[in-house]
Amino acid sequence: MATMLDRGQIRRIDGGITAPKGYRAAGIHCGIKAEARDLALIVSDTLASAAGMFTTNLVKAAPVLLSQEKIQSGAAQAIVVNSGNANACTGAQGWADAQEMARLTAQALGVAEEFVLVASTGVIGIPLPMASLRAGIARLPEALSRDGAAAAEAILTTDAFPKTSAVCLDLGGATVVIGGMAKGAGMIHPTMATTLAVLTTDAAVPAPLLRAALRQAVDQSFNVISVDGDTSTNDTVFLLANGRAGGAPLTEDDEAFARFTEALTVVAADLARMVVRDGEGATKLVTVAVRGARTPSDARRVMSAVMTSPLVKTAIYGGEPNWGRILAAAGRSGAALVPDLVEIAIAGIPVVRGGLGVPEALARAAEAMAQSEYEIVIDLHLGSGAATGWTCDLNEGYVKINAGYMT
Amino acid sequence: MATMLDRGQIRRIDGGITAPKGYRAAGIHCGIKAEARDLALIVSDTLASAAGMFTTNLVKAAPVLLSQEKIQSGAAQAIVVNSGNANACTGAQGWADAQEMARLTAQALGVAEEFVLVASTGVIGIPLPMASLRAGIARLPEALSRDGAAAAEAILTTDAFPKTSAVCLDLGGATVVIGGMAKGAGMIHPTMATTLAVLTTDAAVPAPLLRAALRQAVDQSFNVISVDGDTSTNDTVFLLANGRAGGAPLTEDDEAFARFTEALTVVAADLARMVVRDGEGATKLVTVAVRGARTPSDARRVMSAVMTSPLVKTAIYGGEPNWGRILAAAGRSGAALVPDLVEIAIAGIPVVRGGLGVPEALARAAEAMAQSEYEIVIDLHLGSGAATGWTCDLNEGYVKINAGYMT
Repeated sequence: MATMLDRGQIRRIDGGITAPKGYRAAGIHCGIKAEARDLALIVSDTLASAAGMFTTNLVKAAPVLLSQEKIQSGAAQAIVVNSGNANACTGAQGWADAQEMARLTAQALGVAEEFVLVASTGVIGIPLPMASLRAGIARLPEALSRDGAAAAEAILTTDAFPKTSAVCLDLGGATVVIGGMAKGAGMIHPTMATTLAVLTTDAAVPAPLLRAALRQAVDQSFNVISVDGDTSTNDTVFLLANGRAGGAPLTEDDEAFARFTEALTVVAADLARMVVRDGEGATKLVTVAVRGARTPSDARRVMSAVMTSPLVKTAIYGGEPNWGRILAAAGRSGAALVPDLVEIAIAGIPVVRGGLGVPEALARAAEAMAQSEYEIVIDLHLGSGAATGWTCDLNEGYVKINAGYMT
Repeated sequence: MATMLDRGQIRRIDGGITAPKGYRAAGIHCGIKAEARDLALIVSDTLASAAGMFTTNLVKAAPVLLSQEKIQSGAAQAIVVNSGNANACTGAQGWADAQEMARLTAQALGVAEEFVLVASTGVIGIPLPMASLRAGIARLPEALSRDGAAAAEAILTTDAFPKTSAVCLDLGGATVVIGGMAKGAGMIHPTMATTLAVLTTDAAVPAPLLRAALRQAVDQSFNVISVDGDTSTNDTVFLLANGRAGGAPLTEDDEAFARFTEALTVVAADLARMVVRDGEGATKLVTVAVRGARTPSDARRVMSAVMTSPLVKTAIYGGEPNWGRILAAAGRSGAALVPDLVEIAIAGIPVVRGGLGVPEALARAAEAMAQSEYEIVIDLHLGSGAATGWTCDLNEGYVKINAGYMT
């Protein structure tokens, strides 16, 4: 069990995608957005193992379809990402544009086109402004550096702040580093690999193991967060491993593989929590922990229903310990549930016992809900199924951002 | 097919639950709320056939459990409803309180307790203030009249206006009337019999047929609306038929039964649309019509995903023809979908053809979205599955109402 390992050996460090050895990045303004950086590049000095996870939405953006195809080789060297335009629902033109982005980036870098992945994020249904992108991509190589900050900025859309995380650990006889960056902040839902994120490592990990590690890490991070219950057309998480730390390659059934996956999960969960904290308009980061469900999937059903309930999310905003809404969301989740057995605690304060409210606890719970981060624990007392995720409040800020997105 | 009948024969008339012969109603203030009416009574002069539909939430309020049990007899004479308190998650005390409400009402009216149904709506988890209710129920009989307006007011919670509808039609040799009232305005979702509604008729309809008619009518009304995707612990729709119009009782496989069901659906759909129009904070009533789905249930999946998407609902608020969000919601709905085949029209203006946007239509679509009511039509071009429902916008008003509900 990864969670049985000594967490002390995984140390958080500064930086993001360029914290591991052998990666450079760039982030520039090419003209898709009015002013902010809108074009990012991540390059490994050498060909890297590569894994990816993509949206489950049947409406997939052209770069998603293209990168899904390319990453089957298990190898990649560069990732080009634009923000401000999703290149989704753009038909044959969008497909050609995504391919051209990869081709131009390959030419500019002098690497094979097949090893360049592409991602886009932003408004749906408008063709990419290719003139701006062509000029921008030509300028990317000279902007490359060992500093990943500009790239982390260039992938943002409605985000209020860039999201990066990095850890190091001793692995296979070397000190390896895992870094990452992500963007939020709407269309976030735990259906699959929500948001757009890039993870990098200098560990040596063969592609099949890299895929398995990514699946596990995403399952405990990007797949257990919700901002608004909408799943994007562009959700993508990429993971590159270039082996530049110099350690021995990981093998299956290796204790080192479990530790690598744990460290990767730490970075992915850091980024996922930042995505929720920066949810459109969000003022609260709330952990929703479900215990005692009949099955693990029942636990996830309850978690997801509570995390996405507009009534729970507005109560979180208002700081009201309205446990009836939490219980009602659990009751409609599809999970087995016996109301009389349910216990709910908000910020450590039991507000429901045996399915009944604890009236004398409400004032203290309301006080605790003034904190910017706290936990809601729901125990169904039916089994050992458990799930933990993160959600945010729903408030006027979300409405303002999304009612005036196009204009 | 009910829809093949001459709709001209179903005529809308004034009034609500007391529009049919042989019903009286009362609505008073008993002290659950600070000032507004909070206790309603509906009585049939004679014992009536009765049918009910209830929430599918596993967390059911005591009055729901009690009325579910009682209505199995297929007969009822009175319905007592309080607002301001849901009597949900109130344990053994809540169960005893719901029974006492029925018993006291029966005594006050001089009817058998088994024929008195109970419903409650309002805040969850707080015991009913029984002293207020006891005094209030004792005052109900003297408040009874042939005017249903006070009762329609007394069942409201956060609603901005009362919701009533009535129609008449010639049936079984008599002119029969169907009336109804409903309350909104949050925790509204098309899972089952959402909201709280009472329907009455003076037609003569045996209980099994009454149940069948109610199921069909609810399926095309209260089950195809969404305000916020949350399903209440207290959803209830009651239907009474007392035969006082003097017509022949309806029989199965009767053309008259189809016409009765059609007329019932008109009333139920009127009320359902009013619930959406009065959705918490709502400023728009939008019909979501899905066509060309592979199956009817696929059509409902797309309808429900679009109707509940916070991104679609905020775009409706902002008056932005952001069809990408509609397409993205359809794509994650679980329904079969080929993006290239999809057509979307907003307020009659095609904005997506063959999965691609129609840029020149956007300005006109934005203009049309300024109307307070319009239609979004989504054609998947995969089959003949169709579904139609009603939704509203999501705005700051919803947040304000629900962030400060308890205080």
